[in-house]
Amino acid sequence: MRQAVYESRGAEPHTRIRCVERETPAPGAGEVLIELLAAPINPSDVLTITGQYGSLPPLPAIGGNEGVGRIAALGEGVTSPAVGTRVLMPIAAGSWVSHTVARAASVVPLPADGDVQQLAMLTVNPPTASLLLSEFVSLAPGDWVVQNAANSAVGEYVIQLAKARGLRTVNVVRRDDMVPVLAARGGDVVLTDGPDLAARIAAATDGAAMRLALDAVGGSATDRLAQSTAVGGTVVSYGAMSGEACKVAPGSFVFRNITLRGFWLAFWFRQATADQQRAMYGDLAQRIARGELMARVHRTFPLAQVQDAVALAAAGGRNGKVLLVP
Amino acid sequence: MRQAVYESRGAEPHTRIRCVERETPAPGAGEVLIELLAAPINPSDVLTITGQYGSLPPLPAIGGNEGVGRIAALGEGVTSPAVGTRVLMPIAAGSWVSHTVARAASVVPLPADGDVQQLAMLTVNPPTASLLLSEFVSLAPGDWVVQNAANSAVGEYVIQLAKARGLRTVNVVRRDDMVPVLAARGGDVVLTDGPDLAARIAAATDGAAMRLALDAVGGSATDRLAQSTAVGGTVVSYGAMSGEACKVAPGSFVFRNITLRGFWLAFWFRQATADQQRAMYGDLAQRIARGELMARVHRTFPLAQVQDAVALAAAGGRNGKVLLVP
Repeated sequence: MRQAVYESRGAEPHTRIRCVERETPAPGAGEVLIELLAAPINPSDVLTITGQYGSLPPLPAIGGNEGVGRIAALGEGVTSPAVGTRVLMPIAAGSWVSHTVARAASVVPLPADGDVQQLAMLTVNPPTASLLLSEFVSLAPGDWVVQNAANSAVGEYVIQLAKARGLRTVNVVRRDDMVPVLAARGGDVVLTDGPDLAARIAAATDGAAMRLALDAVGGSATDRLAQSTAVGGTVVSYGAMSGEACKVAPGSFVFRNITLRGFWLAFWFRQATADQQRAMYGDLAQRIARGELMARVHRTFPLAQVQDAVALAAAGGRNGKVLLVP
Repeated sequence: MRQAVYESRGAEPHTRIRCVERETPAPGAGEVLIELLAAPINPSDVLTITGQYGSLPPLPAIGGNEGVGRIAALGEGVTSPAVGTRVLMPIAAGSWVSHTVARAASVVPLPADGDVQQLAMLTVNPPTASLLLSEFVSLAPGDWVVQNAANSAVGEYVIQLAKARGLRTVNVVRRDDMVPVLAARGGDVVLTDGPDLAARIAAATDGAAMRLALDAVGGSATDRLAQSTAVGGTVVSYGAMSGEACKVAPGSFVFRNITLRGFWLAFWFRQATADQQRAMYGDLAQRIARGELMARVHRTFPLAQVQDAVALAAAGGRNGKVLLVP
């Protein structure tokens, strides 16, 4: 079996991770052996290797945090899930592995149909998009949401989930070539970022109130979102693509009563009940299996090329997610 | 009579305002003539002249927004307040005037005792300090609050009102010479700002949770306050002494669930009932009259020297408020 491991944290994350060969473990009593089918490289995975993420596993660590596998073998006393069943890779164990062993009782089965690569991106980004739309501002059909980094995986999920809920989206990107892509995905308005963003949003939406703004960029992009947000509205920071601090003129807080908050899925996991989590993932898995919810895949790599894969995932200018496949 | 008026907005606010002579008006039926006793120059007054404030009166405008006067003459049919009664200068009429006329029924009388200069600062800063402590986080006696610009008038009112409510304060200043001043005023901890602020606050308070942080500086000072705030805590921006955008690392929002909000007294006036406003000002006026609530006065100027007064108020490094007196 192969594992993508790293023994130090810091800059140049692709130089810190490498693919190592290990003996494939045999599942013990009550356990199953899972064989990886696909696992994405998320921004949070890169930040975990650079040491900039909010929680860091002890070193040495296996990379990755989500993915899809199939049951490859059953340990003593295990009768289900049957061999061949598609399941989520175990959480917090590192998903960039060709095989892993898990307790049979803790394994989460997935729909038998549906695109494997799409299902491999279920755990992190779709619930983030869903909760960004529901946990901060009470929105009704017809209401508008504005987001930057709209061509990220979360951004595209936001477009699709917003549309399913009857919400309309203003999508801000840095690259002109993303405008038709996001319009085709269902974005109601797609604009490139710039100093006159608030005025262009007002013009494109007939002055509609943006009560919720989603920021994954930081730096002065946060200020432009805040300027585009209605009096009393909320800006939610959930990423930092620019690598810079969020900058917002005090006047947006003081004179326009803007609130700036953050979202981290880990906090939701701590407070959501098991029923709430099952409901969230059941709904999202079905949407993905039906093809109603998807993110673009830029390129796939075998585990042996994890260094190239991480380098590409850490760079900008991609057209979708980088995935590891066996 | 004299009025401090300006006909344009922009930089160098002291060059835009000047003292002009006018004929002293006679109070009409139902009106009173008020003679100014003292009026402060607040940061909001300077920002109104530079054009950076959240609401701007039409030009030409009279400067100032609060102060204390005395009833100098009664119009036809008016029997109270009696001549000589101390009253608040009318709101939104411009307070940097030697005389003004107001409807007798709308005049707010003040306690007959108490320091006139202290009462002249009642309307804007004391309710700001009071509401900063009550409107954002539910605090109980023994809880801590951290604030920067602690040597501002609002900062000193925060110290005194917090102490009256059993709260404890960490006070951050930029000048070493302010440390003993604020300790004498009742600040529990007084520290100079710097990159290791969060660690020094933790050391000085035995790791106490700061659930409320008050920011009147902006720039990277906001980030240092956010770093000093407990997980799930709130930073409230109510000023911008640095003239810079608030900068906060996204990690404080995402991984530490910090909320950044703003406070503007004007929003409170729009939503508070007349009873709430009377209760607020009644309590604060009594505290000031009893000498329990005070701010330092750096220097007073006659109205004829309003340009010098505004220049000094707009500069840093003062040791208290600049006031205009007749």
